Amino acid sequence: MPWKRRWPGSFVGFRLDKIVVFGVGLIGGSFALALKKAGAAGEVVGIGRSRATLDEALRLGLIDRVGACDAATLGDADLVLLATPVGQMSALMQAMAPHLGPQTAITDGGSTKSDVVAAVRERLPRHAARFVPAHPIAGAENSGAAAALADLYVGRKVVLTPLPENVPEAVARVRDAWTACGATVHEMAPSRHDQVFAAVSHLPHLLSFALVHDLAQRENREEFFRFAASGFRDFTRIAASHPEMWRDICIANKGALLGELEQYQRQLDELRRALQAGDAAALEAVFDEARTVRRAWAEGKLA
Amino acid sequence: MPWKRRWPGSFVGFRLDKIVVFGVGLIGGSFALALKKAGAAGEVVGIGRSRATLDEALRLGLIDRVGACDAATLGDADLVLLATPVGQMSALMQAMAPHLGPQTAITDGGSTKSDVVAAVRERLPRHAARFVPAHPIAGAENSGAAAALADLYVGRKVVLTPLPENVPEAVARVRDAWTACGATVHEMAPSRHDQVFAAVSHLPHLLSFALVHDLAQRENREEFFRFAASGFRDFTRIAASHPEMWRDICIANKGALLGELEQYQRQLDELRRALQAGDAAALEAVFDEARTVRRAWAEGKLA
Repeated sequence: MPWKRRWPGSFVGFRLDKIVVFGVGLIGGSFALALKKAGAAGEVVGIGRSRATLDEALRLGLIDRVGACDAATLGDADLVLLATPVGQMSALMQAMAPHLGPQTAITDGGSTKSDVVAAVRERLPRHAARFVPAHPIAGAENSGAAAALADLYVGRKVVLTPLPENVPEAVARVRDAWTACGATVHEMAPSRHDQVFAAVSHLPHLLSFALVHDLAQRENREEFFRFAASGFRDFTRIAASHPEMWRDICIANKGALLGELEQYQRQLDELRRALQAGDAAALEAVFDEARTVRRAWAEGKLA
Repeated sequence: MPWKRRWPGSFVGFRLDKIVVFGVGLIGGSFALALKKAGAAGEVVGIGRSRATLDEALRLGLIDRVGACDAATLGDADLVLLATPVGQMSALMQAMAPHLGPQTAITDGGSTKSDVVAAVRERLPRHAARFVPAHPIAGAENSGAAAALADLYVGRKVVLTPLPENVPEAVARVRDAWTACGATVHEMAPSRHDQVFAAVSHLPHLLSFALVHDLAQRENREEFFRFAASGFRDFTRIAASHPEMWRDICIANKGALLGELEQYQRQLDELRRALQAGDAAALEAVFDEARTVRRAWAEGKLA
């Protein structure tokens, strides 16, 4: 199909006749629902590992039909979204490569970007001009097709990390698709993206998983959990996140995450020494600055 | 005044003619409001460090009048609540000691209990029979008189750590007062209380403060905070908590908190080694158990 963005700079008439979504869970399913709701999607074809999930996606109206990783499904697609755990993406790209048509734009929903960029260069070198990596900042501790929402991306940020070899039309199509989902689109370099998200997302997830795991090992864990209250509830909400997805994110962003983890461990060492020394002033200084910055952030005065 | 609990085991007629609250912030102000709402409070007298806060508490109707740490205020009180940061309690007890009457029951709202028990034995040895330490599990990142709520304690847990020397009447009066606020009352030994809360409350607060503080040191912190999303928001909600209060809690519960912090650091060391080794299975096992336990807890199936 020809490019459908008839009025550049506007979304009137933005429409993709055929969209293919690999992975019809929270991210992929919500993308499909949002584009359908915006009137921007013709047919949505779903591809996935599990027949049960695909059936559920059909039943929920996330996708119109089930496809396969072949030329019939991919050859004439306007847009392909890879919405699987990032650990699967390299193999998927390899499987897709022979079947992609010359006009298909490709994006992904992975939480890490350097690894996706590396996989594109290795597995899809002939399609790198039209692969525009994306990270929708719309995590939720729920996952799966049943968690998909048409408005998941409304008001959320999506970070694009375009490749130098991307053609402007592909960037525009991917940008327009995420914008049609209701998101605000930002652009960053992949390595900078991974550094920032290691700090503000991947590390907090690791810390939250670690705390719950630590408590879960106690012999009398019921007594601990019985008195856990709202602070614990919020701190550990992300420890209910998808284990496979977060395993893949940690491995994919290993370098930046290790750096963040080591810096955080040094911060904990400092706090431990202050506590051992009974240095109340040092503790209060850390808490006070944290509170000031956390409040400024919540009030939109920092970022 | 004579003991007012006319029908043991019932709250019909439970009424305290005079209540004195040291510290009219979130904890003390909400206690006063709740007892007034329940019709269980006659006069509520407030004592505090800041005249401005006391004026605000008067204006908001949390207290009926302002008192002083003297015999006129304390001598005939039915119940005294210490609702200051725990670091101030020992000095307060010393100041109160000469003025307390023989019929006054005393409780507190501190988040740590071994230190409060030690201070009672040191500072109020003649009143230990009527000091019933309490910890209302109703933290909030807001503090101060303006944050007080009549229903703050409804459905919340309050842990009492009675002393062996407590007389049953004092335990009953304190228990009834917290119950009249809408709370469910539990009992634990002070050291066990501090162990459990070091793990499920004090450590998460320390970790959350540490993360925000760590990010706040970055040169380009705006870019980090700009992309912080809902997971970060929830993880760091408790980093907006009261710095002085949390400084005092950490110092007061130093022993148990250090033990928890060291155990957590060992858990992080393990995760770091798994990450360095690219051991995806080890990471997934930790995440998977954390998710299972966190979900069971949220569904009330653990505790």
